[in-house]
Amino acid sequence: MATIGDIGLSAAINILTALVFLVAFAILRLQPFNDRVYFPKWYLKGLRNSPTHTGAFVKKFVNLDWRAYIRFLNWMPDALKMPEPELIDHAGLDSAVYLRIYLLGLKIFVPITLLAFSILVPVNWTNSTLAKSNVEYSEIDKLSISNIPLGSQRFWTHIIMAYAFTFWTCYVLRKEYETVSTMRLHFIASERRRPDQFTVLVKNVPPDPDETISESVEHFFLVNHPDHYLSHQVVCNANKLAKLVEEKKSKQNWLDYYQLKYSRNPSQRPTMKTGFLGLCGDKVDAIDHQTAEIERLSKEIAEERERVLNNPKALMPAAFVSFKTRWGAAVCAQTQQSRNPTLWLTEWASEPRDVYWNNLAIPYVSLTIRRLIIAVAFFFLTFFFMIPITIVQSLANIEGIQKKLPFLKVIIDISFIKSFIQGFLPGIALKIFLILLPTILMMMSKFEGYLSMSSLERKSANKYYIFNFVNVFLGSIIAGTAFQQLNTFLHQSANDIPKTIGVAIPMKATFFITYIMVDGWAGIAGEILRLKPLIFFHLKNFFMVKTEKDREKAMDPGSLGFNTGEPQIQLYFLLGLVYAVVTPLLLPFILIFFGLAYVVFRHQIINVYNQEYESAAAFWPDVHGRIISALVISQLLLMGLMSTKHAASTTPFLIALPVVTIAFYYYCKGRYEPAFVRYPLQEAMRKDTLERAREPHLNLKAYLQNAYVHPIFKGDDDDEDDYVVEKLNETELVPTKRQSRRNTPVPSKVSGGSSPPSLPDVIQENSVP
Amino acid sequence: MATIGDIGLSAAINILTALVFLVAFAILRLQPFNDRVYFPKWYLKGLRNSPTHTGAFVKKFVNLDWRAYIRFLNWMPDALKMPEPELIDHAGLDSAVYLRIYLLGLKIFVPITLLAFSILVPVNWTNSTLAKSNVEYSEIDKLSISNIPLGSQRFWTHIIMAYAFTFWTCYVLRKEYETVSTMRLHFIASERRRPDQFTVLVKNVPPDPDETISESVEHFFLVNHPDHYLSHQVVCNANKLAKLVEEKKSKQNWLDYYQLKYSRNPSQRPTMKTGFLGLCGDKVDAIDHQTAEIERLSKEIAEERERVLNNPKALMPAAFVSFKTRWGAAVCAQTQQSRNPTLWLTEWASEPRDVYWNNLAIPYVSLTIRRLIIAVAFFFLTFFFMIPITIVQSLANIEGIQKKLPFLKVIIDISFIKSFIQGFLPGIALKIFLILLPTILMMMSKFEGYLSMSSLERKSANKYYIFNFVNVFLGSIIAGTAFQQLNTFLHQSANDIPKTIGVAIPMKATFFITYIMVDGWAGIAGEILRLKPLIFFHLKNFFMVKTEKDREKAMDPGSLGFNTGEPQIQLYFLLGLVYAVVTPLLLPFILIFFGLAYVVFRHQIINVYNQEYESAAAFWPDVHGRIISALVISQLLLMGLMSTKHAASTTPFLIALPVVTIAFYYYCKGRYEPAFVRYPLQEAMRKDTLERAREPHLNLKAYLQNAYVHPIFKGDDDDEDDYVVEKLNETELVPTKRQSRRNTPVPSKVSGGSSPPSLPDVIQENSVP
Repeated sequence: MATIGDIGLSAAINILTALVFLVAFAILRLQPFNDRVYFPKWYLKGLRNSPTHTGAFVKKFVNLDWRAYIRFLNWMPDALKMPEPELIDHAGLDSAVYLRIYLLGLKIFVPITLLAFSILVPVNWTNSTLAKSNVEYSEIDKLSISNIPLGSQRFWTHIIMAYAFTFWTCYVLRKEYETVSTMRLHFIASERRRPDQFTVLVKNVPPDPDETISESVEHFFLVNHPDHYLSHQVVCNANKLAKLVEEKKSKQNWLDYYQLKYSRNPSQRPTMKTGFLGLCGDKVDAIDHQTAEIERLSKEIAEERERVLNNPKALMPAAFVSFKTRWGAAVCAQTQQSRNPTLWLTEWASEPRDVYWNNLAIPYVSLTIRRLIIAVAFFFLTFFFMIPITIVQSLANIEGIQKKLPFLKVIIDISFIKSFIQGFLPGIALKIFLILLPTILMMMSKFEGYLSMSSLERKSANKYYIFNFVNVFLGSIIAGTAFQQLNTFLHQSANDIPKTIGVAIPMKATFFITYIMVDGWAGIAGEILRLKPLIFFHLKNFFMVKTEKDREKAMDPGSLGFNTGEPQIQLYFLLGLVYAVVTPLLLPFILIFFGLAYVVFRHQIINVYNQEYESAAAFWPDVHGRIISALVISQLLLMGLMSTKHAASTTPFLIALPVVTIAFYYYCKGRYEPAFVRYPLQEAMRKDTLERAREPHLNLKAYLQNAYVHPIFKGDDDDEDDYVVEKLNETELVPTKRQSRRNTPVPSKVSGGSSPPSLPDVIQENSVP
Repeated sequence: MATIGDIGLSAAINILTALVFLVAFAILRLQPFNDRVYFPKWYLKGLRNSPTHTGAFVKKFVNLDWRAYIRFLNWMPDALKMPEPELIDHAGLDSAVYLRIYLLGLKIFVPITLLAFSILVPVNWTNSTLAKSNVEYSEIDKLSISNIPLGSQRFWTHIIMAYAFTFWTCYVLRKEYETVSTMRLHFIASERRRPDQFTVLVKNVPPDPDETISESVEHFFLVNHPDHYLSHQVVCNANKLAKLVEEKKSKQNWLDYYQLKYSRNPSQRPTMKTGFLGLCGDKVDAIDHQTAEIERLSKEIAEERERVLNNPKALMPAAFVSFKTRWGAAVCAQTQQSRNPTLWLTEWASEPRDVYWNNLAIPYVSLTIRRLIIAVAFFFLTFFFMIPITIVQSLANIEGIQKKLPFLKVIIDISFIKSFIQGFLPGIALKIFLILLPTILMMMSKFEGYLSMSSLERKSANKYYIFNFVNVFLGSIIAGTAFQQLNTFLHQSANDIPKTIGVAIPMKATFFITYIMVDGWAGIAGEILRLKPLIFFHLKNFFMVKTEKDREKAMDPGSLGFNTGEPQIQLYFLLGLVYAVVTPLLLPFILIFFGLAYVVFRHQIINVYNQEYESAAAFWPDVHGRIISALVISQLLLMGLMSTKHAASTTPFLIALPVVTIAFYYYCKGRYEPAFVRYPLQEAMRKDTLERAREPHLNLKAYLQNAYVHPIFKGDDDDEDDYVVEKLNETELVPTKRQSRRNTPVPSKVSGGSSPPSLPDVIQENSVP
């Protein structure tokens, strides 16, 4: 059992580590040649220029102003200074609301900590149960619920505190949900015109023997939304093209690298090997080889581009349909279009940046099967991931390897490799898995067929949270792998599960305190140092950067990883809520985590991260839901713990808590969630009316023309793309007469009436394949 | 243990009972004076006239044609003759689809029975496990899974059969879901114009200090649906008025009764007592008293009517808003209107007949709390209903009563009362509770705040099913009250629950066979006899009927009780699916139930029941969902049973079944459910276009004018109601200028443009309170 001294020592070490990181950060960030690593956001905004261009040569790389080093924590107040509206303007609503999660942690836990320390700690402390018993105990346990004698009336305090904590948490959660939904609506309302406000994504367009997909879409919407339909853009399957372009870019990078190398050392032409990872194969002249490769790829790209544009099979049965008004788009996105509810599925188009293009053509039945497969796969991943890792670890048994693969004996006998395999491999296998886990979960979500980056991140975060809950939280409380736990739970009564876990909770408090310090404090301090981007930037800068534009590319600030960051925060919410009543001593550690993380991430969001997309805080319902689930879990575990304390008269009073909490969840869901999934007509109409008054002659069609063209056609360095965009638009603007329409005069009368095909359009018809 | 002989005897008795009922029905229905009891539907349709008006006096009451009696089962083919489209036209889609549930039972269980009898029965029969063991057993058990030796390879047959049954059931369910959803869409599409196609119910209209509710609604929709809004009708709180009218009607009935009595026996004026139920109080002249009462009520009704019409407080913050097109209504019903998702809630208006007027004004927060209360109450009702009943039953202990209430001794000592209390009271308490149960559940659903009769019935059916599942199904398998079961399950592992139940299943087969015969066969045969309506009709006919119109009222055929009937059918689905693999002998009994019930209910629907409303088969998703849940339950129980059979190698193969079944459920939900909750725009547009072409000069406003007036104002015997309807419409047609609108010119420009207030309207403004 850890004593307060042990914890203190551990805390001291972790605080020291964190301080070292912070000092290192303070020094590194002041060096001008690191400026692009620590302030890339400002560069991207065009508000900061390379300091390397001005002043003396040395000053370009090293900051010699000693006064700057004295104020090494100055970035903290700076980070806090920017007011929230400005922050939203600077970094987007997603980032600003993401910060509010940390703030929410402080809002929930500061009063809970104060209350717990002023009431629970004295109640626990003034007992002598542990002193009288023969059990080993530490001072920390004296502050926890373990110090209350069995069947004591003092448990009433804990019950009342559980109620107080629940009501406080719910109150803060409701307030916050309200604030965030107002912020979201305000953000959407006050935003400037954006293509996604007018655009709806239509999936599962049924094939029509007489018409192309583009014609079919146009006719359907001319008939069913005659007053509002404006234009559309069929999605084309440019996945292969994107891959080729990606490959070309990589080759281009290598070419730049070799050219730079050659220019620095003109005496020797650089060479390379053509085989796997440049490790084997023929040795060739690198510059010539890469140039040839790039030429080959350029040709292939041109061919593929032609194929995508001219082959109707490259068109997917999905389209982005734009409307004349926001009202029309809001109506189309929220209603069912066709009799068959799996055809003509409409939903709000995400921002163009946010669209995940690869998933746009998955048919309906396939979606169900994909989700089933992933549900099963995720279950196995969560509960059985230890099996492959154990197999890998068993390989670390040298004798085993030697027996099975005797030809490796020569290598293994080298003592360095031997000790490496024995010492590192087992740990490394697990570590590699854990590092890869977010990527694996993201791949699973992609396979499930979600359509926007933001929803992919949300779904991955959900999976990561469940994985963490099972393997970190339960796995730490009940020793043993998740599979063993599952087996135990299956063979235990429903009543006993909270008991088993509840009893173990007070004993694990010190473990979690250490965990918070190592994973939370040191992790956050490491976050601000940005060691990996720092190294990568300097490597790229040295080897590949020729122009200012290249340097811009090398910066790559990345974006806030919602799918990895949020589940981590949620784990702290869970720990805080579970331990609030049981071992209040854990709370200050969580408070420090939330406080530090808030400042650090505020700094990073202001100076570093560049969000890829803007979902207007669409993730908040998930955050809210997970905190509620943590609250319910904490209540059930407390019930389990109480029922082992012979406090039979008090336990029943806890039953109401989860019931009320779940009812609260449904209340919030009904009250606030629609703000995150639907778009009120009132709002749409107001914006439309305002716009009509302000800009009566706006050419919306021209504005929306290229908004939803596949990003691969919007490349920033190829001239031919303009041609492509034109070509794509051509195909979209051609209304034709379908053969079967002549037999169904009524709908065609409407469609013809509202938008008669003009002569040039009809002539262009022939140019469409 | 019941032998085949016992079962045969029981079957014989029940078949005899059923036959007696059927013969009695065959005789009674042929008597002309029962005609209105057995063929009310035709009277209501105006296709049949009282046979009592023609022919000889005796023939008016008794059918003397002996040939009619010979063909006493003739009604069966008659009932089956009417083709389905005609049936839909005759009785509505709800009834036709309700019959399909029985047909679905036949479709699922006929092939399952054939397969089970050709494969499972021989496999079970050709063992001698039971013969070798010392356990008492019957011939029935020889046909069941109990006869397979532990750990036998023959269990593979059962596993394969479980798969076959599951796939067959899912296949039939999917087919049926598809058919029903097509029928629904076709029904909606081919229907003539109905007010609810154009109308949306708006709830939670926010109060406005400057405007009445009517004005507020009009302005909101003129602004946000400028091209489609037509008119609206504010809901008024006429609950008290309805009660008074009801009371007046009852008094009128009594007056009729006394007048009839006086006319038959003019020598003596009838008297009555004014106290409770006419049992105590002053004796007065009945005719005078009732006339005075009716006069008093008429006055009160007039006052209340004035109050409702002129007092703005009688208006509820809800309105029926009508649109110019079905498209406009479909859009409004499916979208969110206002920023605050708890205000301006819109949903499809139910049919006017289907609206449950009392619940139209419940605010949003209250709904959450009401549902929470009912959830808790229903939990207690299901698991603890035996407690009050046991208390009542303990009163049957005569000595206990005498001790506690000694003054009752004189009464109790009377031997008749004593034996009554001892013999009947315990059973009667439970019986009364079970008879009242549907009413209690309906009251619970009403309290929850659902807005239409159809949804109330669906929710009650759901509750009744859960109650039946816990108390009839589980309660019969595991002896003991529901509360004891709950206690057992809470103290048992999740793995053991299916085992506990699964093991008991084969032993309870004979019990359930008997149950099916008593509750199912005899119940259905009793249904066709209509004993209660028969008696009531003749009582009313004798005591109160003066005119033909009165006789019409006395008929009261009632309607198909979905909330009581459907859960009963579901219980048979559950039994069939659970026992299909375990004891196939049960299946033929279920087949007979489904077949008999199908014929009987087809007859009743054609000749008797008069549906109160038409929800276009909105209940099908519930039916489908409950059959799926029965399927999953049967799979889990089979797994439990198998795991006790030492068939460890076979059990894991069953795990995939529930997973696949649940995935199938979600697939169907996504694929077909939208057809039951949403209205596709394509469909709406098509009907609008057709209508515009056929009737270009239709005055829709006039058509919709009185559609959603509270039924109390549409009374069929009061002249003053016309005035009221006019008055209500007056209030609704007055657009006024709100004071605050002068500061917000933009929306008012739109609203003013699309519907400028005409002069007469502005003048009428002053007449609105």
